[in-house]
Amino acid sequence: MQVVTDPLALQADCLARRRRGERIGFVPTMGYLHRGHTSLMELARPRCDHLVVSIYVNPLQFGAGEDLDRYPRDPEGDRAACERAGVDCLFMPTDLYPPGHSTRVRVEGLTAGLCGASRPTHFEGVTTVVARLFGLVQPDVAVFGEKDYQQLAVIRRMVRDLAMPIEILGGPLIRDDDGVALSSRNAYLDEDQRRRARSISRALAWLADAVAGGEVDVATLLARARARLDVDRIDYLEIVDPDELQPLARISGPARALAAAWLGRTRLIDNVALVPPSAHR
Amino acid sequence: MQVVTDPLALQADCLARRRRGERIGFVPTMGYLHRGHTSLMELARPRCDHLVVSIYVNPLQFGAGEDLDRYPRDPEGDRAACERAGVDCLFMPTDLYPPGHSTRVRVEGLTAGLCGASRPTHFEGVTTVVARLFGLVQPDVAVFGEKDYQQLAVIRRMVRDLAMPIEILGGPLIRDDDGVALSSRNAYLDEDQRRRARSISRALAWLADAVAGGEVDVATLLARARARLDVDRIDYLEIVDPDELQPLARISGPARALAAAWLGRTRLIDNVALVPPSAHR
Repeated sequence: MQVVTDPLALQADCLARRRRGERIGFVPTMGYLHRGHTSLMELARPRCDHLVVSIYVNPLQFGAGEDLDRYPRDPEGDRAACERAGVDCLFMPTDLYPPGHSTRVRVEGLTAGLCGASRPTHFEGVTTVVARLFGLVQPDVAVFGEKDYQQLAVIRRMVRDLAMPIEILGGPLIRDDDGVALSSRNAYLDEDQRRRARSISRALAWLADAVAGGEVDVATLLARARARLDVDRIDYLEIVDPDELQPLARISGPARALAAAWLGRTRLIDNVALVPPSAHR
Repeated sequence: MQVVTDPLALQADCLARRRRGERIGFVPTMGYLHRGHTSLMELARPRCDHLVVSIYVNPLQFGAGEDLDRYPRDPEGDRAACERAGVDCLFMPTDLYPPGHSTRVRVEGLTAGLCGASRPTHFEGVTTVVARLFGLVQPDVAVFGEKDYQQLAVIRRMVRDLAMPIEILGGPLIRDDDGVALSSRNAYLDEDQRRRARSISRALAWLADAVAGGEVDVATLLARARARLDVDRIDYLEIVDPDELQPLARISGPARALAAAWLGRTRLIDNVALVPPSAHR
């Protein structure tokens, strides 16, 4: 496995591979890798000749007062996880951005609600870093987790709008044995918080069951699901259409339930597909 | 010469050419082509196997009340000019953007002054359309005129920051016999306005001479140059460093003088390199 830290060296290598006809796969991450991340690498692996994984804790996507400084890191463990996953090139830049970097990419509309409401600069940071990483890696296919469901929708929109010739694949959310969505931020939780964190995935699972059972009224569904959340603060719990992420009043086809909640200083997100009985026909 | 109107058909053709190892050159324009444009095509022609020219009057780069609706058009003349210049593919989309297009690319800092001060949304429109065109065309080299000097600096910055693997070439500003910078917007001028428009290029030429002669005080230079302008309103006349476009107080190396001025309802821009005697050594 190559380990590259210089952005332009990475780009030169990737451009040379593309000229030779190699197909490049890419999984961008912020490190502290868990099975959620490695499942994305497993999705990418058979779809490319050369698999690049990046690890970069991107300051642009953290707001003031967020957890940039304490974001968990484990470079040695990450390196071993990438080796095991059959990664060809691990890109771990110290400085990803050039001096005087002043270009920003943003997606409007899709970024207004959900996580964008409480983290107003977050998605601009995400699209800016992903656009630069795509420029460096020149991937044919890139994989993002459905755990960050809104992010996946935002990336798909950016790629379509800027006509980037890149296939975007969404990888299923991976849960721990207790149902909690895998997240690097789970490392922040103490025992009691971890126990209460289960109420998020359970409330979402209850929503999926209720919708599969025929309940269509979103206000009713959300009120009942909120009552099941044992968290310190709910940032949001919403049911939206799966593409434009607009809030729904009534379930009439496939939908998505998304939640963000605080346990102490830790903010967790989770989401689940909602499929009404009519859509199973 | 191919003429393509469908963005995704253009992209499929360009991607196939790149896979075959062809080198793609690109000159984006808003049409109503003059010798300024064709000089850019001549620069690109020997540097690529496949030369693409786009013609698209991009609504995103026009502000409210600007000349989007009356911008001059000549599709037949443009087509003939491209044939003569040896263009391989003329891309004339009717709809460049997909429905629900909501991604924006902006460069901060460089876009704050000069044209950006009076046209606050202009450069975001430029970088957004150019990023999408680059995605569609996948050029190895793209040529922009120094006539739009700030635009050229902004595009270079975007390409560097987003790590787009594209060489950006600047083509020299081309003047008419009377010294007026070639511009599609010159078509708006009546006879008297055209006569007075000469004062812009003459004031800039005077500045270049004064600096070459050893004058270094920018306030003195600008006051004397302004007195030479016979226009209805000066938008700006500035002397800046050639890369970051920051105003200078004193000439101590290569610099750039840029002007924007109104003649009736027509806004013209022009610029010139300033080279002090010390830089000639």
